[in-house]
Amino acid sequence: MTAAAAARASEPLALVCGGGRLPGDIAAKGAATGRPVVLFALTGWADPAVVERFRHHWVPLARYGAFRRLMRQEGCRDVVVIGGLTRPSPFGLRLDWGTVQVLPKVLRAFRGGDDHLLSSVGKILEADGFRLLGAHEVAPDILAPAGLFGTRAPTARDDADIALGLRLLAATSPFDVGQAVVVGDRYVFAVEAAEGTDRMLARVAELREAGRLKMPRGVGVLVKAPKIGQDRRFDLPTIGPQTVDCVARAGLAGLAVAAGGVILAEPQEIARRAEAAGVFAMGVSAPEASP
Amino acid sequence: MTAAAAARASEPLALVCGGGRLPGDIAAKGAATGRPVVLFALTGWADPAVVERFRHHWVPLARYGAFRRLMRQEGCRDVVVIGGLTRPSPFGLRLDWGTVQVLPKVLRAFRGGDDHLLSSVGKILEADGFRLLGAHEVAPDILAPAGLFGTRAPTARDDADIALGLRLLAATSPFDVGQAVVVGDRYVFAVEAAEGTDRMLARVAELREAGRLKMPRGVGVLVKAPKIGQDRRFDLPTIGPQTVDCVARAGLAGLAVAAGGVILAEPQEIARRAEAAGVFAMGVSAPEASP
Repeated sequence: MTAAAAARASEPLALVCGGGRLPGDIAAKGAATGRPVVLFALTGWADPAVVERFRHHWVPLARYGAFRRLMRQEGCRDVVVIGGLTRPSPFGLRLDWGTVQVLPKVLRAFRGGDDHLLSSVGKILEADGFRLLGAHEVAPDILAPAGLFGTRAPTARDDADIALGLRLLAATSPFDVGQAVVVGDRYVFAVEAAEGTDRMLARVAELREAGRLKMPRGVGVLVKAPKIGQDRRFDLPTIGPQTVDCVARAGLAGLAVAAGGVILAEPQEIARRAEAAGVFAMGVSAPEASP
Repeated sequence: MTAAAAARASEPLALVCGGGRLPGDIAAKGAATGRPVVLFALTGWADPAVVERFRHHWVPLARYGAFRRLMRQEGCRDVVVIGGLTRPSPFGLRLDWGTVQVLPKVLRAFRGGDDHLLSSVGKILEADGFRLLGAHEVAPDILAPAGLFGTRAPTARDDADIALGLRLLAATSPFDVGQAVVVGDRYVFAVEAAEGTDRMLARVAELREAGRLKMPRGVGVLVKAPKIGQDRRFDLPTIGPQTVDCVARAGLAGLAVAAGGVILAEPQEIARRAEAAGVFAMGVSAPEASP
């Protein structure tokens, strides 16, 4: 490490926090390295119970001027953006001047899904001289490891479904489609786009109940991977315990995520629920290649 | 035309009919060429009002032995399979011996969606010496023509969305995914798989109502095309008036289908409803190439 890098690594780290428990996990891991952390909790998304364990400021999304000023006051230059952000309506928000300045970029972000908005926030920060880090640069162990998370293992049929799912994701990757699919016995049940992974899995459960999928319960795998060549500082796909619940409700055999390319929120709980539900959960090697 | 071909063209044409009005349209067009037509109406799917205008037999799906015998009695060798077929449960059907013989093939067909079952029925017929024709070989004008079906035209943004949708469909084509997508302002709203086009469009409508798609109504296009290299004797994607209704409910600008590769059920009604709903409907050239 150079002297400059060492100096920077001792500066407080800013964590821009959306919803869920993941921001708290990252903050704890960052703090455990001895680096001070300051949370910038997005009002309406961040969970007070998660945020209040750390030094923090509540900042409404539409008050970017205040946000930037606070970050500079805290001496933060390195920023991590993390956590779920269901998008607000662009109307009905009170805007400050800093926000008005970046509004064209924000409005463009409303075009896409959660990930688009989150990555757009990241780009705006960078344009103001902050350095955006990936959550895994602060806490490398949040990324899915290779191998089984529990004791359940995929069958040969599941392995074939995982391979097909990864090839399909590689094929759709250039189109900025949501990066998850459900494949069962080599048949594609569902492809995620704007609806997100949980709703896609709910659809598979509904199709099964409606008799539109004739394969028995226990056939089918959720496969999730980042886009090829994706900037891994943000937008990394994430699964959590609720993903396991959705996989079980959809009657699938299990889930496979790209090792090193998908964040596990609450990994112990993921493994525990997978065991309890009788589904497998694992990290697999996802080649960065076309089908 | 050779003498053998001319003789064959004077033999009665068998139409295996699923649901909807399309089988009646094809039968009328076939009959209009002077060729006798015999409808084999699948009990539970075919519409009596459609079928009873023509010489017909009602045949349960699980009674393939009876089906084959009737076709031979009628002197039918050329067969067209047409119309929607929501799949039955493989259990609870009374089977005859002819069905038991082909049952392994039928059960394999339950793996996929409607199209899979329909194409599987086609393959079983062929194995018994019948010649399977595409509906468009009997009635070429059922395929979508190139150009606008009504007076509404796509904007430049819609044109870009159509082009992106066709490239995405080309990319997913090798994976046997449902061949329709919804794209709005270069963002992929939805990709069809086992749920079918109408349910995919219902999802877009729901995402819009839930505030998950921030683009205003009037942005977004349904794009539908056959799989690349698809056997066009069956499985050709079809749209009908209800597709237009779903497009309108999803708040889209319109729909674009591959000219010559998608069947239009009730084309006048498609055009009429598109006009009434203020959406465009058109056939576009879909290159048989990768993105």
